[in-house]
Amino acid sequence: MGKVNRLVCVKCGKTYPFGAYITCPACGLEGILDVEYDYDLARRALTEEPLRVRSQANMFRYLEILPVDEVPSQMLRVGWTPLYRFDRLSEAVGHSQLYLKDETVNPSGSLKDRASAVGIAVALREQRSTVACASTGNAASSLAVLAASAGLSSYIFVPEDIPLAKLYQIATCATKVFRVRGTYEDAFDVATGAIARWNWFNRNCAINPYLVEGKKTCSLEIYEQLGYRAPDWIVVSVGDGCIISGQYKAFKELQILGEIPHLPRLLAVQAEGASPIVDAFNSSGEVSPVRARTIADSIRVGKPRNWRKALRALKNTQGVAVKVSDDEILDSISLLGHRCGIFAEPAGAAGFAGFLKARKAGIISADETVVVIITGSGLKDPSSVEPKIQIVEIEASEDAVEQHLS
Amino acid sequence: MGKVNRLVCVKCGKTYPFGAYITCPACGLEGILDVEYDYDLARRALTEEPLRVRSQANMFRYLEILPVDEVPSQMLRVGWTPLYRFDRLSEAVGHSQLYLKDETVNPSGSLKDRASAVGIAVALREQRSTVACASTGNAASSLAVLAASAGLSSYIFVPEDIPLAKLYQIATCATKVFRVRGTYEDAFDVATGAIARWNWFNRNCAINPYLVEGKKTCSLEIYEQLGYRAPDWIVVSVGDGCIISGQYKAFKELQILGEIPHLPRLLAVQAEGASPIVDAFNSSGEVSPVRARTIADSIRVGKPRNWRKALRALKNTQGVAVKVSDDEILDSISLLGHRCGIFAEPAGAAGFAGFLKARKAGIISADETVVVIITGSGLKDPSSVEPKIQIVEIEASEDAVEQHLS
Repeated sequence: MGKVNRLVCVKCGKTYPFGAYITCPACGLEGILDVEYDYDLARRALTEEPLRVRSQANMFRYLEILPVDEVPSQMLRVGWTPLYRFDRLSEAVGHSQLYLKDETVNPSGSLKDRASAVGIAVALREQRSTVACASTGNAASSLAVLAASAGLSSYIFVPEDIPLAKLYQIATCATKVFRVRGTYEDAFDVATGAIARWNWFNRNCAINPYLVEGKKTCSLEIYEQLGYRAPDWIVVSVGDGCIISGQYKAFKELQILGEIPHLPRLLAVQAEGASPIVDAFNSSGEVSPVRARTIADSIRVGKPRNWRKALRALKNTQGVAVKVSDDEILDSISLLGHRCGIFAEPAGAAGFAGFLKARKAGIISADETVVVIITGSGLKDPSSVEPKIQIVEIEASEDAVEQHLS
Repeated sequence: MGKVNRLVCVKCGKTYPFGAYITCPACGLEGILDVEYDYDLARRALTEEPLRVRSQANMFRYLEILPVDEVPSQMLRVGWTPLYRFDRLSEAVGHSQLYLKDETVNPSGSLKDRASAVGIAVALREQRSTVACASTGNAASSLAVLAASAGLSSYIFVPEDIPLAKLYQIATCATKVFRVRGTYEDAFDVATGAIARWNWFNRNCAINPYLVEGKKTCSLEIYEQLGYRAPDWIVVSVGDGCIISGQYKAFKELQILGEIPHLPRLLAVQAEGASPIVDAFNSSGEVSPVRARTIADSIRVGKPRNWRKALRALKNTQGVAVKVSDDEILDSISLLGHRCGIFAEPAGAAGFAGFLKARKAGIISADETVVVIITGSGLKDPSSVEPKIQIVEIEASEDAVEQHLS
């Protein structure tokens, strides 16, 4: 693995050789590591010209800056998701250069597949047979689904309040799913203990530094799909802080490779009832755990594990952090559905709600190019839309139809 | 539209110019039409060599044999779904050349998106502003989703027993959804009347001959993804009979174009409680409506509308038709999940259950190449798996985990 130079602790800055540790031994679980590549090596292969003719339509097209040498041969296809610009959405919100990165069409229905795919590739390289994680749902279903395709066993820990669609998807694909009586934080703690005790491969994204590497491929694709340039803004919802950290890493590396002159600004969006990272960024810079409450289960995180990377991403990009209400999230689900046909889960639409808020507040101006990442599918938590949808119940007659057309 | 030669009635054989009618005026709703192209024209562009270098990774890469001239610019990306061969699945069932065509990753989560995409392209060409259909769920959600992306209004008619995930997806994207008190057949009849009365564009697949054209793109992709050849068998679940008719059309046209020497055999699979097409094929050749009962809502069709095309497809390919129980369907969902990470809805896994049955019965032999089409995502009806899944409920402690590991 000559292409990885070293691992760097985001807390203390110590460096380690590739593969030496999962987290910094000096800082413990808070010492999350960053992967640094040999960018001189990458620069020869990973620039616009060779990328334009690269035919591989999945996330492993960026192998030069991923921490694996081989693409798993037996794995569901992840990535190269569409980037859309819909006229009718632009008209509705008065913003022309508005793009949606549609992560709902990944195999398990969310962006998390990108992280799991790299995790599994690393696990295969290390000849591990069992992978495990705790998750509010999407990372869990993603790991279960991709591990099954790659032939690995999977132990999955989920909180009590996981939406049923995700739970059933996991139960259909995982070796074993443990529903822990308690919150995501409880499930996380049990999983962390069990993973250490039985020496399973740890796919907890905040802990395992390789997973953010998978998540960054989303923005590498955005760069290509925009015509080999960065947007002015990347907008994304935030839970543990891993997805936003991945997007920052992508653009940081594109800058190091000389492909973009400056970084896009990041807009971090959290739900009002689960906003420790937004609050920390807008005040002291230190995260205080909260009791998380929001309909957006994928970002229902009260004690974020990767807040240092997330705050660094915001700080280094002149980023902004906003909170949105559950009601604003539901309105965004409806807008994305009716104007674009994209059915987003609450966390998937939260980013869009944050964009609307930032646009209204003048944080984002009308002429800027904005990419909102729709992180997960509404099919993973369909009942969340119940408060806002309208269904016309009728008898089987045309007259009954007519009554509802006027 | 010089590329379309004519429309041919599957019942009486009369021919009509392109665009003249939706169904044969002599035969009424039973006179479903077939689209015939100028294959001499298509032969120049749509052969292996030009296809190999065609970069368009979606279903409109076959524009030469689709009934539209333009790809809608504002529409979600449909098609070019993965074709997988999983070693562990092959081992589990003792069949080496076993492929899965994964239609679950289409934008609304099912193969039906291919039909809706062509439907909407035709509607746009005809400058229609409103599209409509009746559906057990997938066609409906597909139409709602794609119409929204293309800027068309949609009126959707669904039966009472539609799974909630599909209903909520539709309600989030459609202009209006009518839940009709009654069966799919009742919803179909109301929709047919309303569509005629208010002159909406009719997306009912059995009625509108252009939709099967969209469905055939699934098998055109299979032909390419197998290395420009046909498999020995195509296996697919059957409701109204449109999907299987589309796959037949694809291979028939590839044969006309000189790309394949002979047609693959078709294996039609229906649920035991909703098997009018299987029964007709295995006996008189005439369809008798039944009261449909199965967990597989997408093929819960008691009065299939496109049975003539379906039976012709079976007859002309030395096809075979089998029935599977709901229990066999659930076992196939579990097998596909645990061995491949593909979470299929019951109708999506029914084809696989039929493959297992045909394999066991010696209808399919061990050395034949088989492609099973996984038509829709389990996220569209997750509660169907309840009878078979296992979820371990534990307190938040490692000891609780340990108890369940042995």
